[in-house]
Amino acid sequence: MDVKVQLFGFGNVGKAVARVLVEKKKFFREKYGLDFKVVSISDTSGTLWLPEGVDLREALLVKETFGKLSSWTNDYEVYNFTLEEAVKEIDADIVIDVTNDKNAHGWHLTALREGKAVVTSNKPPLAFHYAELIGEAERRNVPYLFEATVMAGTPIIGLLRENLLGDTVERIEAVLNATTTFILSRMEMGLHFEEALRQAQSLGIAERDPSGDILGIDAGYKATILHCVAFGPKTFDEARVKGIAEITLGEVQRARKKGKTIRLVATIERGSITVEPKEVPLDSPLAVESHENAAVIWTDLLGELVIKGAGAGLKETASGVVSDIVKAALTITGG
Amino acid sequence: MDVKVQLFGFGNVGKAVARVLVEKKKFFREKYGLDFKVVSISDTSGTLWLPEGVDLREALLVKETFGKLSSWTNDYEVYNFTLEEAVKEIDADIVIDVTNDKNAHGWHLTALREGKAVVTSNKPPLAFHYAELIGEAERRNVPYLFEATVMAGTPIIGLLRENLLGDTVERIEAVLNATTTFILSRMEMGLHFEEALRQAQSLGIAERDPSGDILGIDAGYKATILHCVAFGPKTFDEARVKGIAEITLGEVQRARKKGKTIRLVATIERGSITVEPKEVPLDSPLAVESHENAAVIWTDLLGELVIKGAGAGLKETASGVVSDIVKAALTITGG
Repeated sequence: MDVKVQLFGFGNVGKAVARVLVEKKKFFREKYGLDFKVVSISDTSGTLWLPEGVDLREALLVKETFGKLSSWTNDYEVYNFTLEEAVKEIDADIVIDVTNDKNAHGWHLTALREGKAVVTSNKPPLAFHYAELIGEAERRNVPYLFEATVMAGTPIIGLLRENLLGDTVERIEAVLNATTTFILSRMEMGLHFEEALRQAQSLGIAERDPSGDILGIDAGYKATILHCVAFGPKTFDEARVKGIAEITLGEVQRARKKGKTIRLVATIERGSITVEPKEVPLDSPLAVESHENAAVIWTDLLGELVIKGAGAGLKETASGVVSDIVKAALTITGG
Repeated sequence: MDVKVQLFGFGNVGKAVARVLVEKKKFFREKYGLDFKVVSISDTSGTLWLPEGVDLREALLVKETFGKLSSWTNDYEVYNFTLEEAVKEIDADIVIDVTNDKNAHGWHLTALREGKAVVTSNKPPLAFHYAELIGEAERRNVPYLFEATVMAGTPIIGLLRENLLGDTVERIEAVLNATTTFILSRMEMGLHFEEALRQAQSLGIAERDPSGDILGIDAGYKATILHCVAFGPKTFDEARVKGIAEITLGEVQRARKKGKTIRLVATIERGSITVEPKEVPLDSPLAVESHENAAVIWTDLLGELVIKGAGAGLKETASGVVSDIVKAALTITGG
């Protein structure tokens, strides 16, 4: 069955999603009977729109060669839509948001009102407007899916939203940001914070403006989303967030001597969201390395549950986005 | 909304499920709008049937006082149905199998053909008849759910069945039997196999006939079910299974000296199911203790994913059964 998809965002994650859709075309058809037809791709330069479906291999080539879709002028029309207009004008079943648009909740709502499913890896819409978005999706009976917003493709959202349905979650502790883990690990090897940060930046692990990661904002968004799913709506403004910028080499080394390691830990309980650097024992599931994230979930019936996996990376984030695209498509087509 | 439920099996797990249904009645109503009405309970002594709904507190009291439902003669009729007859005669929405009936696949199929959802913690039906059962459920568009068959309520089945939908699973390694972990842990403390087994039996961790656990049959059933879910149908007869009965104290201690620990490890790849004792590094997710189970899942997009949690226990198993009951009820009622 043909499923029409709009892709918003064609940076690293958008390209990774497009690559999975190209490379696993046969897999989706054989396993689920689904043919994804990407009818539009939007980047900051414009919106490429072709109702019969964009050739993703070509789009990837253009993007990689010229850096922007608007350079592609021979075969395709590139439109100057706002994202809101692109949602309204273009016929599709699923809207995919892999942008960093902080104001995306507006066009997410528009998509839902148009009866389109929404799949997003973009966190601020959820961290600030969860109740409104989920409310709209439920009223319209349209999927609103966001697995990749927390722990990349590691399915903690699916686990909390669609499983453990008889359990009452009591508490979640999690390491949700890989950049801070990288920096803290390098400090354990003897680097000062600034050196470790520079290394992370030169490796492309931290962004040029690293404040979102090191001030704990990224982890705070994710922790807020986990609270929304496990305990009900809350916004990022209500989270208590402290980053790792003030951690000293001495603190890191003292922790190590006690058999512990400092990680940026999110603690989520009903009505309370906290993100702060904490000493965790080396044998704790939260003592993650490299790009791994981990969460420990305590419930009344099951006790302690650990889920651990990739929390960053392009393929790893695409994993979550694409799983949601399939889930949305199966729901829409009644599969 | 009222959902009519038949409970087959009223041993320790059945009683734990009944207790959760009693104690969290308000939770199910408020969170999901669901009222579970248990219209029949079957144990080996007979079937208690009341179309208006059995009083679960009373049923638990009778069972705990007299050991069997057939002792309850004042208010209720106890029928001498076979389980097959109970499925056919009694009107209900969901059939719950928490028995140890090795031949339950017959009445599972009957239930599905009657349009009833099936929720089971009973492994042999799946380990021997997966293709037939799932095929019937799909043809009838009726839920067939079995979270509690593997890792108790730890949601590995939900994770593999309803998440990671864009990923191709490449390999699973897992410790799926808590009794063997207990025995091997005690051997690490210096006990011989026989002593460790006797301790497990006296603590109620191992059964009087412990062969299912120590010969690897229980883990083999579970590994077969994981293969079915991740890679497609296969039966237990095709699994290569070796238990822990031949492990010596010397082997356990030699592993420990190398910084390793012996655990009964299931390895599942496309077309291949193996269960055998293996040395695992102490810092591996598979180096579990006590009643924990763990699984490591490798996929093409996400890489390595770990899920770890209770693999045994009454409340912990009830967690999986009850989550499936809610899931089935929400599907049936379109919630």
